[in-house]
Amino acid sequence: MFADVRRFLIGAPLPSAQMVHERLNKIQALAVFSSDALSSVAYATEEILLVLVLAGSAALGLSLPIALAIVGLLVIVVFSYYQTIHGYPSGGGAYIVAHENLGEGPGLVAAAALLTDYVLTVAVSISAGIAATTSAFPALLPWRIELCLIAIALIAWANMRGVRESGTLFSVPTYGFLVLFLSLIAVGLFRLTTGTLEPTAAAAAPTGEGTLQALSLFLILRAFASGSTALTGVEAISNGIPAFRKPEATNAGKTLVAMATLLGIMFLGITFLARSLHIIPMESETVVSQIARQVFGEGPIYLALQTATTLILVLAANTSFADFPRLAAILSRDRYLPRQLTNLGDRLVFSNGILLLAILASALVVIFGGRTHGLIPLYAVGVFLSFTLSQAGMVRHWRRLRGSGWQWKAVINSVGAVATGVVLLIQIATKFLHGAWVVLLLIPVIVWMFHSIKKHYLAVADQLSLEGVCCEEWPEADTRERHKVLVFVSGMHRGTLGALRFARTLSKDVTAVMAEVDLDRTERVKERWQRWGHDVPLVVLESPYRSTVGPLLDYLDQTDARDPERGLAVVVLPEFVAARRWQELLHNQTARLIKNALIYRRGHTGVDRVIIDVPYHLRH
Amino acid sequence: MFADVRRFLIGAPLPSAQMVHERLNKIQALAVFSSDALSSVAYATEEILLVLVLAGSAALGLSLPIALAIVGLLVIVVFSYYQTIHGYPSGGGAYIVAHENLGEGPGLVAAAALLTDYVLTVAVSISAGIAATTSAFPALLPWRIELCLIAIALIAWANMRGVRESGTLFSVPTYGFLVLFLSLIAVGLFRLTTGTLEPTAAAAAPTGEGTLQALSLFLILRAFASGSTALTGVEAISNGIPAFRKPEATNAGKTLVAMATLLGIMFLGITFLARSLHIIPMESETVVSQIARQVFGEGPIYLALQTATTLILVLAANTSFADFPRLAAILSRDRYLPRQLTNLGDRLVFSNGILLLAILASALVVIFGGRTHGLIPLYAVGVFLSFTLSQAGMVRHWRRLRGSGWQWKAVINSVGAVATGVVLLIQIATKFLHGAWVVLLLIPVIVWMFHSIKKHYLAVADQLSLEGVCCEEWPEADTRERHKVLVFVSGMHRGTLGALRFARTLSKDVTAVMAEVDLDRTERVKERWQRWGHDVPLVVLESPYRSTVGPLLDYLDQTDARDPERGLAVVVLPEFVAARRWQELLHNQTARLIKNALIYRRGHTGVDRVIIDVPYHLRH
Repeated sequence: MFADVRRFLIGAPLPSAQMVHERLNKIQALAVFSSDALSSVAYATEEILLVLVLAGSAALGLSLPIALAIVGLLVIVVFSYYQTIHGYPSGGGAYIVAHENLGEGPGLVAAAALLTDYVLTVAVSISAGIAATTSAFPALLPWRIELCLIAIALIAWANMRGVRESGTLFSVPTYGFLVLFLSLIAVGLFRLTTGTLEPTAAAAAPTGEGTLQALSLFLILRAFASGSTALTGVEAISNGIPAFRKPEATNAGKTLVAMATLLGIMFLGITFLARSLHIIPMESETVVSQIARQVFGEGPIYLALQTATTLILVLAANTSFADFPRLAAILSRDRYLPRQLTNLGDRLVFSNGILLLAILASALVVIFGGRTHGLIPLYAVGVFLSFTLSQAGMVRHWRRLRGSGWQWKAVINSVGAVATGVVLLIQIATKFLHGAWVVLLLIPVIVWMFHSIKKHYLAVADQLSLEGVCCEEWPEADTRERHKVLVFVSGMHRGTLGALRFARTLSKDVTAVMAEVDLDRTERVKERWQRWGHDVPLVVLESPYRSTVGPLLDYLDQTDARDPERGLAVVVLPEFVAARRWQELLHNQTARLIKNALIYRRGHTGVDRVIIDVPYHLRH
Repeated sequence: MFADVRRFLIGAPLPSAQMVHERLNKIQALAVFSSDALSSVAYATEEILLVLVLAGSAALGLSLPIALAIVGLLVIVVFSYYQTIHGYPSGGGAYIVAHENLGEGPGLVAAAALLTDYVLTVAVSISAGIAATTSAFPALLPWRIELCLIAIALIAWANMRGVRESGTLFSVPTYGFLVLFLSLIAVGLFRLTTGTLEPTAAAAAPTGEGTLQALSLFLILRAFASGSTALTGVEAISNGIPAFRKPEATNAGKTLVAMATLLGIMFLGITFLARSLHIIPMESETVVSQIARQVFGEGPIYLALQTATTLILVLAANTSFADFPRLAAILSRDRYLPRQLTNLGDRLVFSNGILLLAILASALVVIFGGRTHGLIPLYAVGVFLSFTLSQAGMVRHWRRLRGSGWQWKAVINSVGAVATGVVLLIQIATKFLHGAWVVLLLIPVIVWMFHSIKKHYLAVADQLSLEGVCCEEWPEADTRERHKVLVFVSGMHRGTLGALRFARTLSKDVTAVMAEVDLDRTERVKERWQRWGHDVPLVVLESPYRSTVGPLLDYLDQTDARDPERGLAVVVLPEFVAARRWQELLHNQTARLIKNALIYRRGHTGVDRVIIDVPYHLRH
């Protein structure tokens, strides 16, 4: 029944052989990998304005030069990543590039930074998406956390069903958003030029919130740092090259350039409109919503844009749902994360990674109450850290490889590394106290976790290794006589009898052991033993505290201690299995308790315990 | 560590030999078994007034005749139960008496009625107790559900520690309540007689709530039915005779008479005071609180009485915590309830019954929002049903036994049966629509559950029975050769090797089986098998959907089908056990999945599967 529910939700399982066909064409890939980067235009301008407004509404005019600087940075980053895609056609995530070229330490730092930022991407995008909805429908504001959690669950579910389906599923809203957002900018510019659109008087008024700060360089840098969240997600394509159709690298490179062009146009356009209309950021309504309301009026087009904004932001989270499980699987393959993260689910996706991301992001949403602005200071630090490490790694890569024109390639990546490195320092300096410290603390903790896990797996591999084990150690044909077999019984019935008989086929040295919880019961068992117990001796153990498990384990320890050379202690457990699950509630699950206790308790003598479970199936 | 916490909370485990010493003297027994009956004076008068006030404040004068009728009923019931105690000195609960004299059906109905009412007793008493506190401290009103749940948890905890300790623990508040409540009545009567206490004008005013009903016989009977909740708990002593010190029956009888006398005096006294002071029931303050405020003023004595009222009501729930687990254990011994309910905990109490009661009562408190008045219509129906069945059973008992003066004894119990039977009909008729229907529906469901459980246990006993099993069926000394042993492996390492070696000591027919999830892995395993696999053949199963468990089980089914005469299939599972619990998160728990699947899947061929678990312990 559970299997039926799963099949209904997730779809029929796909055979492993279908793996290679699960690829995306460029149109689908843009929808899947670019929604993160593109959707950030929904909040990046607002975050710039929210910092500048601290110095009064007059300072808002600086938003356009800041946006230009960010677009300049975008060009540098895109040049760098275009090279990465062609240098690492099998997938050039920051972890792989940094690990291969700079060594394990920088690689793991990049990985930790990326994992952190993927979780933040989900939380930020979902929060911002729900904010676009509550801008249009303020009545939904009290339910924003619930709406966020539902959205995360829906994306996780879509991803569980498989990546191609998500490409189809997500194309409509992504392209809907592109069309509507570009229309907003075109219509807005046209109406500004023709003079049919003018800033409202109310919007031009000062905010009057708190005391004003002086317009310092620090404030401008902080606005720049906040706005550069627009660049998050640009690296997604370079991580996801294996999901493209062949030729993967060429397709991925073209998609990257298309995405960056769209991103630059939309970001500059919306910032220009915000400045021209003297938009001031508000708690209750997003900046894009204010602009759209003025350009389109409150008609169906406005509502369509808000809906598309919500959808693309909700789907932006999907970029992380494509990347996080993939990176986690790579790390897991390299033994830095639990190996379950490499398991392919029924639909050939890394189901465990998807689940883990959904849980972590949901926790963040609840902690921050679904408010985008609270999450921004934590955001982007990890991205720029991984940008820097990745570009620095690429410089090293070209210098090692020395292919044709390697000097130019190295220069481009050097510029990228320096530029993103400087922005990283700006991020840390301007947002440290507002929350960036959390991420800076978290990354080393995660790296330490990576090392602990690797250490464990290496220790396991070492202990399991067969090196030095010689073939001569194989046991002789008949060692049956040597086993000492204990049968743990709680009564004398058909189930017990089956276990005793099986035990007798293993060894001549079989002893039945029972803990005395109830005197009457012991008497009954002893009586029956005389008739059915054959030649197997029954040992009855005192149990003054009515424990069934304790005395049996103690007895086993004593037996082991008497003959530590034996190597193996064989314990036979009769277990009757109810015909229906509800009937299990009607029985003491003693056999299970004993099994658990035996597995974890190796005994002081170091004798291994082999546990033999002889089930007796009840028919009804 | 878990054991340490448990020992700290529950106390050191007591050896079974101490069982007999865990008895109560009369003073302790009155506190443990009478708090339910005695504490009902805190709400019984109020419930009468709440019905009468529907016909206007003039009707409130009828409360005293109604209370007199209830006390008359009390006298009849006490006479009946005094006989029950001496007729069943080893504990004469309604279940035992009805079962023995009237048959299984009536016995189970009585048991179901009692169990239901024990749960209701806890919910009603706790709700009323917290109402006494919120009367004195209205600021606590919003937390009443939380306070109820904390109180239930505390009582359950006290009971987990053992019954003697609870006798000592609970004596102080019970006797404190008795002293303060009797003082209230004495001082109230004295001040009324001396004319220093007079009804306030405000209290004499009409309520003005809704439209008035005509004062019908139905309304008077409903008031009587609501007030007769005062009798709940009277049967507690007859159920609990084995907890008394010797001579049990004599001590229990004396305690019963003392309790009934106190109950009658307090109930009549408080009803008389309420009528004389023209008290009108209010939502925000209990009737007893109103009386006490007028008699004592709002000084420390008033607060002490409210505190004592809360405590005795909270402890009244304790009566159920003594009786419910005991009745559940009796039913469980007779196989009508899961056998875990007979398990004696560390402190020689029926821990599972205590836990079950706490959970059920907590659920009721949450469902009814901690409001006493909502629970009253469900209450007492079960008690009067069990009273009637118990007394009818006693009549049969005397007629069968025919000892000295049996006719008189039979007459007394007949009067009891008829009186409680009539009251039961009144309960059902007047409260059916207000909630009694729930209980009337629940009782047959519980009885049906009793029968299902019994049926299962009988079926199990039948299937486990050794009758007809002949000693000759014992297997021959060496059947080792015949076992076909499958070793399920996922790789080739030291853990696998240990399992293979053990398998070889069982039989010459050993086959290793592995599901192919990953082609590279299979190649590695095959390579190593050549070197270390000795002569054990390795079968690699295709697994197109990457399942490790499914193909192994299918293979096992096929093997069984080929040789259904074998009777037993032996499966060996190598399982490596991590040195620390957290490390388990880093491994696929495949061995455990397979174990669970094997135990529940018997195979189409009916071949039993013996599961052999060969653990390999990691050192670090």
